[in-house]
Amino acid sequence: MQLGRSSWSFPAAPVILASAAVGGPFEAAGNLGGDFDRCFNDLWLGEASFEKAERFLLQEACSLALEKSGIKKEAVDFFLAGDLMNQIVTSSFTARELQIPYLGLFTACASAMEGLALGAFLIANGGAVNILTGTVSHNGTAEKQFRYPTEYGSQKPPTSQWTVTAAGAAILTNAGQGPRVTGATIGRVIDMGLSDPFNMGAAMAPAAVETIMTHLRDFNMGLDDYDLIVTGDLGAIGRRIAIDMLKEKGLVIAEDRFLDGGVLIYKKEQEVFAGGSGCGCVAAVTYGHLLKRLQEGLLRKILVVATGSLLSPLSYQQKESIPCVAHGVVIEA
Amino acid sequence: MQLGRSSWSFPAAPVILASAAVGGPFEAAGNLGGDFDRCFNDLWLGEASFEKAERFLLQEACSLALEKSGIKKEAVDFFLAGDLMNQIVTSSFTARELQIPYLGLFTACASAMEGLALGAFLIANGGAVNILTGTVSHNGTAEKQFRYPTEYGSQKPPTSQWTVTAAGAAILTNAGQGPRVTGATIGRVIDMGLSDPFNMGAAMAPAAVETIMTHLRDFNMGLDDYDLIVTGDLGAIGRRIAIDMLKEKGLVIAEDRFLDGGVLIYKKEQEVFAGGSGCGCVAAVTYGHLLKRLQEGLLRKILVVATGSLLSPLSYQQKESIPCVAHGVVIEA
Repeated sequence: MQLGRSSWSFPAAPVILASAAVGGPFEAAGNLGGDFDRCFNDLWLGEASFEKAERFLLQEACSLALEKSGIKKEAVDFFLAGDLMNQIVTSSFTARELQIPYLGLFTACASAMEGLALGAFLIANGGAVNILTGTVSHNGTAEKQFRYPTEYGSQKPPTSQWTVTAAGAAILTNAGQGPRVTGATIGRVIDMGLSDPFNMGAAMAPAAVETIMTHLRDFNMGLDDYDLIVTGDLGAIGRRIAIDMLKEKGLVIAEDRFLDGGVLIYKKEQEVFAGGSGCGCVAAVTYGHLLKRLQEGLLRKILVVATGSLLSPLSYQQKESIPCVAHGVVIEA
Repeated sequence: MQLGRSSWSFPAAPVILASAAVGGPFEAAGNLGGDFDRCFNDLWLGEASFEKAERFLLQEACSLALEKSGIKKEAVDFFLAGDLMNQIVTSSFTARELQIPYLGLFTACASAMEGLALGAFLIANGGAVNILTGTVSHNGTAEKQFRYPTEYGSQKPPTSQWTVTAAGAAILTNAGQGPRVTGATIGRVIDMGLSDPFNMGAAMAPAAVETIMTHLRDFNMGLDDYDLIVTGDLGAIGRRIAIDMLKEKGLVIAEDRFLDGGVLIYKKEQEVFAGGSGCGCVAAVTYGHLLKRLQEGLLRKILVVATGSLLSPLSYQQKESIPCVAHGVVIEA
């Protein structure tokens, strides 16, 4: 059911029957290592390239989610996935292994919630019974593609973010026990003219705020209606800007009720500049950490706002600013 | 309504209220130049780069479709778009200009029908009233990104395809007059082990056949139920393989009822090797040429099967084969 222009509520709310999160060694050593289903102790995952390692991460998250759900992959109607690689090859090669009808998505890190929102819409409206959705990122592939191979040892400013090596996947279905997806808001592209790819948190914060404001208006809710709003991934700088922007609009939220996946995932002593980022971060934080807290009764209702920085290395080289988008999904215990 | 595993039928069939196709000079000189709403007489479209030209093409197709529909962009709920550029920047920058809530898609050239299928599902199930969907490609940007800048003059084998400089866009709505989207089938990824990016038609043909077979089974239809099946874009070689594969499965179809966008778009004397390709080809052929024939009563019911070759230059360099997918949409007069 459409609310406002770009929100959906799901009275027949799809259930997240199972989910899985997997991570690399740096993520294992972070704050949420214990919430991951599996962590790998080297960045290569035993593969011959970082690209193959990234693929393995997504496949592993999907396999584990399927296994935990008890649903065979032949019974899954659609696979909705995206990643940061050019032509989202990681998702497409994973779709080849899964042999599940495939809807490829891309709004950078916002792809994680684009998949969950569209998947929930399809199930809530009789377009599917079971859906698998997931996203992934890998530090080695992202550094190589977007910046420089890590072997170059190029330096970064403190505003930059650290691409997370992780994947998260979820099995959505039309019945059963588990957290429920009750609503979603699809964002507009917001571009405030920032063009520094080493400060994407600042670029993305206004998109997150825009989607949160639209969401609250469409659902006629206030910030207090949510136990937690989790963005992914603004990092420490973007999160601060988002909190300030919300405050300017008269929306004051407590620090501990406005969290960010990129801040949550690593420990303070881990040197990740402004925090984590990448398609796999918000997915692993949501499908590993947050769903566990919903299942344990520690959270009742949350809004996950995945933020995407829609630049490419070429658009940056051609002096374009960074268009950003955020998609929000409501998950209830 | 779900049919089989991966098909949807739309009893309340969304209407394509208006559509537009725009093309470059080479496309203007082709078979379908007269069906385009606007053609440009240089490949740069007056812009400073091919990337900006590609963006202009998609924006122009969207503007023209909006204008013809009489619907203001503020009344459009979602923009579903994709393209071939890394991180689909053309679609994202267009979404920034449009300021319509944005769902970015990528299954290469299959994105065109992924957008139409998802858009129709959203409208048919009350998730949106008006949707804008479109895709684009540009010969200059695709050659540069996937092969070599055209200025290098590198040679190609006769199995290769020519990236079309064109865009197509459509306005879908829940009421009114126009061709209707009555069903869709989302494809699985098929990879027969082919790895030659200069013969993508052959790589994609099995995916097209798989989706057609699934579609006919899910809808309990035969080839004769369609006036036309149009693939996009297998080119001459892929089309021949698809016809042969269907025949082997006992499905014989007349040559003039199984067409391909990449074959249709250019004249025989235009030197395009095996035919056209690119996200903009099937979109421009569908939203320019085919919809006109449906509106004129020359066609009653067609199945458009958009085929995507899901490789990247990197996956090719890493010796991977080419995963392919095809999404089919039924359009009726």
